[in-house]
Amino acid sequence: MENFSFYNPTKIEFGKDKEKNIGKYLSAYNIKKVLLVYGSQRVKKDGLFDSVTNSLKENSIEFIEFGGVISNPILGTIQDAIKIAKKENIEAVLSVGGGSVLDSSKTIAVGTLYDGDVWDFFCGKNAIENALPIFDIITLAATGSEMNGYAVVTNEKTKQKLSIWSSCIYPKVSIINPELQKSVSKEYLVYSASDIIAHSIEGYFTAKVQPTYMSRVVESIIKTVIETTEILIENKDDYSARGEFAWAATNALNGTTTVGTKDFSFPNHLIEHSLSALYNVPHGAGLSVVMPAWMKWYYKQNEAQFIRFAKEVFGKNSALEGIEALENWFNKIGTPTRLNQFNLSKENISEIIENLSNQQEFTKEELKEILSNMI
Amino acid sequence: MENFSFYNPTKIEFGKDKEKNIGKYLSAYNIKKVLLVYGSQRVKKDGLFDSVTNSLKENSIEFIEFGGVISNPILGTIQDAIKIAKKENIEAVLSVGGGSVLDSSKTIAVGTLYDGDVWDFFCGKNAIENALPIFDIITLAATGSEMNGYAVVTNEKTKQKLSIWSSCIYPKVSIINPELQKSVSKEYLVYSASDIIAHSIEGYFTAKVQPTYMSRVVESIIKTVIETTEILIENKDDYSARGEFAWAATNALNGTTTVGTKDFSFPNHLIEHSLSALYNVPHGAGLSVVMPAWMKWYYKQNEAQFIRFAKEVFGKNSALEGIEALENWFNKIGTPTRLNQFNLSKENISEIIENLSNQQEFTKEELKEILSNMI
Repeated sequence: MENFSFYNPTKIEFGKDKEKNIGKYLSAYNIKKVLLVYGSQRVKKDGLFDSVTNSLKENSIEFIEFGGVISNPILGTIQDAIKIAKKENIEAVLSVGGGSVLDSSKTIAVGTLYDGDVWDFFCGKNAIENALPIFDIITLAATGSEMNGYAVVTNEKTKQKLSIWSSCIYPKVSIINPELQKSVSKEYLVYSASDIIAHSIEGYFTAKVQPTYMSRVVESIIKTVIETTEILIENKDDYSARGEFAWAATNALNGTTTVGTKDFSFPNHLIEHSLSALYNVPHGAGLSVVMPAWMKWYYKQNEAQFIRFAKEVFGKNSALEGIEALENWFNKIGTPTRLNQFNLSKENISEIIENLSNQQEFTKEELKEILSNMI
Repeated sequence: MENFSFYNPTKIEFGKDKEKNIGKYLSAYNIKKVLLVYGSQRVKKDGLFDSVTNSLKENSIEFIEFGGVISNPILGTIQDAIKIAKKENIEAVLSVGGGSVLDSSKTIAVGTLYDGDVWDFFCGKNAIENALPIFDIITLAATGSEMNGYAVVTNEKTKQKLSIWSSCIYPKVSIINPELQKSVSKEYLVYSASDIIAHSIEGYFTAKVQPTYMSRVVESIIKTVIETTEILIENKDDYSARGEFAWAATNALNGTTTVGTKDFSFPNHLIEHSLSALYNVPHGAGLSVVMPAWMKWYYKQNEAQFIRFAKEVFGKNSALEGIEALENWFNKIGTPTRLNQFNLSKENISEIIENLSNQQEFTKEELKEILSNMI
């Protein structure tokens, strides 16, 4: 076990109808005016928007709407929102949507209290010191953003997808109502499953010190995701499976799975961020292509842990059988495992490598080997 | 999954030498004067006391010593400390010791801001509204108190062992340095193992709704405790095992294992509290006597979960085999499983039942059945 500090101040309100109290949760922080950030107009059609705004009105909280955040959220949209938030003297940001909306909201919360360009924080030109308080109603399980201090944004001009972390951008209160997540399409359900598994395995396989207890916790998350995804494909209304899927997603990236570990990295996310920045593929779909390819390339560097994974998660006996079982499972649930499923081919490999030229994790040769496993 | 709220604001500082920064952690809360609560003089002999007070002095924090807290801490001692804390205008309580010292410290923190008798909160005469900030260096892994809002105290006059819970008594910062825990005797190590397992199984077996993910997390804790206890019995200096044991202990009772569950209770603790209130047996030793006895009596009410436990933790196939495996493991590590190991016999059963007459969990007949399994 390595030394660590653990602190996660986000309050989770989990369950049916919790979003109807959002105004009360904001009032507890004495918030009088929020920026209400969302993605598509879908939130207005399904009644969620009304629930939220009714609760805000009942609690005399003024709100300014900011819709139109897209998947793989882009900097331009966020910069527009920051201008509005500054002009309107917004006191807090309320995100209603999935990870893209929440990551945008976190970035808006940081940018509103900053005089320069918020992208400065993503490229390390400045350190985050402050942010507006952030609240969210998370409508898609996967991101983990509802209980951590990360945000990932794409700069559409430079084609970079980069992240920030700050203790200032842990949401104050996150509402997870599994019922709100059942309108997610089957496609996005399986992409989410892939995303949660990716969050789980990055540290699990790459850490230089990995306590066995943490491995057990990660395996618990992955087994839960596999089990509940299969239930939800059959019956999207299974509340219990929906709830366990959502809570496993939150736990996969709230810091509890990596305490006491040492020097882990996010190689799968690194490569995938390039895929979604270049070709706008859904993040989880990109990850299910990257993971088996990376695992086949990497496993010999930590074979004991890959054998553990094979045994504990799939009841298999070797590292390669475990990787194959995961890939087969991705195929079974219908999330991509090859680049051609995005209409990409060998020809795109050099473009991806070029896009990844600013990272230090891999050499170009190594990337070529990994990417060739995706053909 | 049931609806839940989850919020755990304790900051954990885990690892080697962390206690040397205690003054810095207190300063971050602008604390200038603390009550330094501890148990025996042992903390002075092993250098811990000097480390702590040096750090306080370096950060210009005044401290008043209050030693002499005993195992199964008693109300009288706490009342004495509250008088001192009031008189000295103490701003925070710093606990240096195990669960008994920390639970006493929490109670002192509550009582110092209350005009009446602090026992009022234990017997439900009043609700906790405020407490001094609490900090701790936990020297024994078991209690979980370092990351929750519980405290358990014995009223030596009424022979009642009761608990309080309040969001006000989560420690602000808890220091867990596994190295400080290696001076714990082999006896107390195995009692601690029993205690952690008891914390883990109460909800696991009694909840009316138990998400599978939560079962997996509990099993991860129990498997880790079993594995690391065996390592530590062989080699008390194994830092890695000591660290995993400590962190599993914290997680067993920090609220993460029971989210989304419904209506669980603490039957084993209920019965054990009577044993330690009447005969002053070590809490963990009492629990390893109570658990197999209670499990044999209870398992048919939730047999599927007992079969799950048998399979996942011990690789056994039936509920009774799982219970037997746990009892055998307790015998193997040397924590008691029968009342006669406390020099108690059949003759004491009526006394224990009498002591438990104020609870609603069991009838007298049921208690008789459970207690007869301890003979």
